[in-house]
Amino acid sequence: MISSTVLFYGNYVLCLCLGLLCVVFVSYWNIEWRGGFAWDASFLQFNWHPVLMVTGLVVLYGNAAILYRIPFTWSQRKQHWKLVHAALLLSSLILSILGLCAVFDFHTGYHIPNLYSLHSWVGIFTVVLFTAQWLLGLVGFLSPCSPLGFRKLLKPVHAWMGMAIFILSLASCLSVTRNADPPPITTNYIEALFANFLGVLIVAFGLVVLGILSNQRWKRPEPGEESSRSLLPEDN
Amino acid sequence: MISSTVLFYGNYVLCLCLGLLCVVFVSYWNIEWRGGFAWDASFLQFNWHPVLMVTGLVVLYGNAAILYRIPFTWSQRKQHWKLVHAALLLSSLILSILGLCAVFDFHTGYHIPNLYSLHSWVGIFTVVLFTAQWLLGLVGFLSPCSPLGFRKLLKPVHAWMGMAIFILSLASCLSVTRNADPPPITTNYIEALFANFLGVLIVAFGLVVLGILSNQRWKRPEPGEESSRSLLPEDN
Repeated sequence: MISSTVLFYGNYVLCLCLGLLCVVFVSYWNIEWRGGFAWDASFLQFNWHPVLMVTGLVVLYGNAAILYRIPFTWSQRKQHWKLVHAALLLSSLILSILGLCAVFDFHTGYHIPNLYSLHSWVGIFTVVLFTAQWLLGLVGFLSPCSPLGFRKLLKPVHAWMGMAIFILSLASCLSVTRNADPPPITTNYIEALFANFLGVLIVAFGLVVLGILSNQRWKRPEPGEESSRSLLPEDN
Repeated sequence: MISSTVLFYGNYVLCLCLGLLCVVFVSYWNIEWRGGFAWDASFLQFNWHPVLMVTGLVVLYGNAAILYRIPFTWSQRKQHWKLVHAALLLSSLILSILGLCAVFDFHTGYHIPNLYSLHSWVGIFTVVLFTAQWLLGLVGFLSPCSPLGFRKLLKPVHAWMGMAIFILSLASCLSVTRNADPPPITTNYIEALFANFLGVLIVAFGLVVLGILSNQRWKRPEPGEESSRSLLPEDN
């Protein structure tokens, strides 16, 4: 039998590789077929939108969500890893907000109305929820004056909401994919195929992250739980 | 404090209502704006596709997935509920396959190539995986000659794969949403808004189902587990 830890690290390496491929694919797609990047309210500014959202709201967010699952971190003070978790998510939030600025600026520049598509509805809802979740996490888990009872109450809500936000961010990504023109094979068709592969990579990354999150054996053991590991004292 | 059971039933009723609304919305959308239904390889046959997929692969599937979580069923023989679970999923599978036939027939009738979009890739992969999962579930959990060791091994894989198929089916639904034309408000715009609401309903239904599945306190207690409920003997 493969041990649970080896199986975890197998999944973790897969998650890192898929995340990296998502970032490479979304960047290459915008450089090769969409003309690259600028910050001038043109469609070249729009191109930052998919890159920043996939990198921030999907890849960085997914990696931050599974941070506590890494067995290597279990023997260390949780407080340090909470700071890493919060910092990764703050980077994710900043990239997401920049990604939203990119698309709003582009819309303003081209007089395109905002927030009329399903993609924009789900997307804006996701980022608003994420901001609230980050602030609540900061107050609840990092502020020294947050009472233990409140932390205990908040923890399952925070974990569930975190998963929901990740699913919503995947939903936002997928709700934007345009249907390619059917074959014959043209440049447009090859681009669409490439964008489809990006969609497949995002779905695969999402499934691996959600698989890691849903496996109870990979949860960080809390003090008082049966465990053969010796743990330093930690706070919830 | 609201008890865990009351909270479950609150979520369950929400899940039933959202599921029903999804079916009503997808049907009304196709009747009101898409010309209704037929089975004649025209676009009226295509209209069966969203209705059958949402009803089968999302709503019926989601309800079948959370069946064992209903506390009412815990005091009854699991074998009976396994049959209900299998029957619900078989109906879901049949509707999904009919939904695929609807779109393939329409494509053949209009000489449109098959399987070139992300939607079609994720969708066909989901239905193939679902078929394999259903057959493996039948052999593993309902066949009397399946050894107990195999059932124990299969159970977490079956549960995880079941969740993955559900997420893939949500991903398929969302990857098809076309971007509406922007305002001004025309019939097309109202239709697009309505279709967007359907998307929001599907996302909400998916989140409630995944929320129920991920809550460990709502899992059916297995024999030998600490529980105040008296349970009849059951087989995994």
